[in-house]
Amino acid sequence: MRLPTHVTLKEVGPRDGLQNEATHIATADKVQLVNLLSQTGLSYIEVTSFVHPKWIPQLADAVEVLQEIKRHKDITYAALVPNMHGLERALQADVDEVNVFMSASESHNQNNINKTIDATFPILEEVVIGAKAANKTVRGYISTVIGCPYEGYIEPEKVLYVTDKLLAMGVDEISLGDTIGVAVPTQVERLLETLLKRYPAEHFAMHFHDTRGTALANIMQSMEMGITKFDSALGGLGGCPYAKGASGNVATEDLLYLLDGMDIHTGIDLQKMLEAAQFIEQIVGKALPSKQMAILRNEKEETTS
Amino acid sequence: MRLPTHVTLKEVGPRDGLQNEATHIATADKVQLVNLLSQTGLSYIEVTSFVHPKWIPQLADAVEVLQEIKRHKDITYAALVPNMHGLERALQADVDEVNVFMSASESHNQNNINKTIDATFPILEEVVIGAKAANKTVRGYISTVIGCPYEGYIEPEKVLYVTDKLLAMGVDEISLGDTIGVAVPTQVERLLETLLKRYPAEHFAMHFHDTRGTALANIMQSMEMGITKFDSALGGLGGCPYAKGASGNVATEDLLYLLDGMDIHTGIDLQKMLEAAQFIEQIVGKALPSKQMAILRNEKEETTS
Repeated sequence: MRLPTHVTLKEVGPRDGLQNEATHIATADKVQLVNLLSQTGLSYIEVTSFVHPKWIPQLADAVEVLQEIKRHKDITYAALVPNMHGLERALQADVDEVNVFMSASESHNQNNINKTIDATFPILEEVVIGAKAANKTVRGYISTVIGCPYEGYIEPEKVLYVTDKLLAMGVDEISLGDTIGVAVPTQVERLLETLLKRYPAEHFAMHFHDTRGTALANIMQSMEMGITKFDSALGGLGGCPYAKGASGNVATEDLLYLLDGMDIHTGIDLQKMLEAAQFIEQIVGKALPSKQMAILRNEKEETTS
Repeated sequence: MRLPTHVTLKEVGPRDGLQNEATHIATADKVQLVNLLSQTGLSYIEVTSFVHPKWIPQLADAVEVLQEIKRHKDITYAALVPNMHGLERALQADVDEVNVFMSASESHNQNNINKTIDATFPILEEVVIGAKAANKTVRGYISTVIGCPYEGYIEPEKVLYVTDKLLAMGVDEISLGDTIGVAVPTQVERLLETLLKRYPAEHFAMHFHDTRGTALANIMQSMEMGITKFDSALGGLGGCPYAKGASGNVATEDLLYLLDGMDIHTGIDLQKMLEAAQFIEQIVGKALPSKQMAILRNEKEETTS
């Protein structure tokens, strides 16, 4: 097995996790969550989203959260930005990185963004140009890279098509999302074979949801093909609000257990990550789906009984 | 990626799953469960255990269950057998295969079986000889092949030591158990490298628990090294009653999702497996941990709300 010695985890819990929570979460709790995450050793936190509050009311306090968190100089604090209005607010809040997004699947893109794929590119390009002018790096999310809730399996060529456009407009990194968590390793292999024929692995991060339990297997496959950047959410928070049946992102602490066990360096402290997860679990008021959190709960029960 | 075209799943839910259930389960429900499993396309079901009811009261009705199930000629109905007294009862109940067990870790073996590893071999050998005399095949479980709750990491040489002895006494197949669900793929690789230097892959099945979410990744690694037999339990039932923090076996339906998605043939019908899992979930009276069952519950909620 050929595996990397170092891997970068990009924490998306505060955004991709909390945007799907039914519970109202106070701005102060979001700030506290990001501050706890900043102490774990993470180098990247996606803090919030500038999608219009009409669509994601959960993150309507995006500016406040970004202004109130305590920033560490070695951490990139990013946010999702859908358009020029969002970019204006994001720059006002001094985000470090601007994250644009669209889908590889035509119908998912239309359901999620209300535009065709080709009509989405100019919107994103405007944002990319604006972000670059403000000296920000840009990350591009591509959703439904393997399966779509409306179209089923997505051919790698469709992902390549969107990748080509995003990289050509100056996006620095592409995050490839298995939005509804349907991927199996052979599909990941096929997708990455297609993309890595044209671009180096450094251009890509993988973003797996663990809806069907395949996320860690898919991450293993990705690492064996040279990918060293992975999105994850503490506790296994999250999912896509527009994709039926989509459950959480792969849990940061479960991924850390895997990587630590294989001596793959992340710089992140598992215990501190679990403390942050315990904090947010208390706030959202329900058991989070990660395996590490289940183990903690079992140990507590054993201690108290 | 080099993967097998066919894989055999050995269903251990009725034994390894139910032996850990706190709920009393009626004999008729156990019989019904095995009958439902017999209709899924499985070729192997571990039905029960002849460990003394003092230790596993949950399976005290082993003889009755084996006598009352409706047997299919293409299915092997197996049971756990600890000693000659257990073998007598197992043969009386006409099991198809006799499954002996011990640990690779000295302290786990002593905690579980009350004997040293070396003192366990003669007990098992007597059972193996008796089973062979009755024309039964024999499966040998080795527990804690990667991690032990008392000793931590277990060196592959310790597993090889027990493997050598079991195969020498005539055991037909070894099931290698990550009893407490701590394994990561590099450890699986290291273990199998050691064993496969001496024995062909056909001698081994892998038995993973999903306590830390790594089971499917470990199964991928095992398949890439030529292993084609895996133990699993519907619903993700199970665990080891003597190992602290041990949660369920890898769920049969989650493993089926992975294998089906990669066109690896098992002969098992996922829908029928889910029906069996729904049946036993109702009986045990709590949500089973498998991802496929969570998806089913979500779909039901969406339909009824």
